[in-house]
Amino acid sequence: MSDDCIFCKIIKGEIPCTKVYEDENVLAFLDIGPVNKGHTLVMPKEHHETLLDLPEDVLCSVSKAVKKISKAVKEGTGCGGFCILQNNYKVSGQLVPHYHVHIIPRLETDGLKHWPQGKYEEGEAENTAEKIRKAL
Amino acid sequence: MSDDCIFCKIIKGEIPCTKVYEDENVLAFLDIGPVNKGHTLVMPKEHHETLLDLPEDVLCSVSKAVKKISKAVKEGTGCGGFCILQNNYKVSGQLVPHYHVHIIPRLETDGLKHWPQGKYEEGEAENTAEKIRKAL
Repeated sequence: MSDDCIFCKIIKGEIPCTKVYEDENVLAFLDIGPVNKGHTLVMPKEHHETLLDLPEDVLCSVSKAVKKISKAVKEGTGCGGFCILQNNYKVSGQLVPHYHVHIIPRLETDGLKHWPQGKYEEGEAENTAEKIRKAL
Repeated sequence: MSDDCIFCKIIKGEIPCTKVYEDENVLAFLDIGPVNKGHTLVMPKEHHETLLDLPEDVLCSVSKAVKKISKAVKEGTGCGGFCILQNNYKVSGQLVPHYHVHIIPRLETDGLKHWPQGKYEEGEAENTAEKIRKAL
């Protein structure tokens, strides 16, 4: 737990939420500013900032819960599909530094657009991949 | 394996890719239309369409690989953060029906915007959550 973390305060029950699911390791509740209705946040009860900080057992617990809750979000909202989004570090749009996964119901009519795609110049993809492989 | 799946063909080596990582269960390569340079796709070698079709052991293998590769994408590209995105069903923007996770490096200068957020009317959040909880 982190004393100044809003999600830790929700987990401790000090701040209310609209709860969707809870087990020993995981809490899920509705995002208060939903991209679409039923937009749900799933998080470990343990405080970790990003994916890179998450122990593997916690990662597996949360991933299994995301699968289970996604199925219920799809059935409960009647959406045709959903996006799983998880942001890491402020530059990515992570607003609360407590690892959390967004389940976002998607509708034919929601008008949301893919981010624009770029392309690689000759040789640039291989150079980029090599830098990533070296960091593995 | 699915005979008409482009990702299965890449996994079998019938179509080339710029490989970033491979192990017994997982393959990762660069997206050919990157949102930012270093945008990587991570997938199980087994053919499953969506998160809801994924066996839990496969889900854990892929999740651990995504963590490992994300760290290398961050270090290799020098990005300040990254988004994890995973789309399910066509309406969500899933273009290839073989489960895959996007690792998208994020930069202060990339100009990408959050999807707009809505809000719930009085009582609507609780009704929505109740429908999801009943489907669990």
